[in-house]
Amino acid sequence: MDENQTLENFVLELRRGALILAVMSQLQSEQYGYSLMKTLADNGLEIDQGTLYPLLRRLEAQGLLVSSWRIDDPRPRRYYTLNDNGKRLLSKLKEEWKKLTNTIDNLL
Amino acid sequence: MDENQTLENFVLELRRGALILAVMSQLQSEQYGYSLMKTLADNGLEIDQGTLYPLLRRLEAQGLLVSSWRIDDPRPRRYYTLNDNGKRLLSKLKEEWKKLTNTIDNLL
Repeated sequence: MDENQTLENFVLELRRGALILAVMSQLQSEQYGYSLMKTLADNGLEIDQGTLYPLLRRLEAQGLLVSSWRIDDPRPRRYYTLNDNGKRLLSKLKEEWKKLTNTIDNLL
Repeated sequence: MDENQTLENFVLELRRGALILAVMSQLQSEQYGYSLMKTLADNGLEIDQGTLYPLLRRLEAQGLLVSSWRIDDPRPRRYYTLNDNGKRLLSKLKEEWKKLTNTIDNLL
């Protein structure tokens, strides 16, 4: 099997879980899709629309965020923000992240 | 949706990618399944056999580790260890992990 492909797949798996945490962390204040993508990219976490929007829909379906259209110039935008459930879950997820990174750093 | 179930799923997703890294990190020296599970559990990373063995088979199929049976007392054991490809990939994966944890820590 191609070695770079293997690395690529592993990196994707590594990032997949952390992505939820990254996205939720930025939705503590209101964001629209593009602003969210840009903030993440500026921090070195590239996420394409085909990954981001399904994730946002999933979080909304799970009752963790609210979204609404707003008439912005030049076009309407859908804004997303965590609700109280989402904020509570984010805070638990942060604790788990800290535990996990400590564990992995110990193992490495 | 049940909130604890949602948290549980997110935590599993968070751990899934890191698990490959954790397992590979421990296979720099030779281990058998149970010793590997125990080392991970002692570091706070519980992994069941139904997750570990498929992962080991996957790593072997990808040409990243070698394994062989040895006649131990009281029973034969299969020992696993990274080969050179696996070590090279582990070192790249570690770099990616460092980048990812820096990114997430900045975002949080």
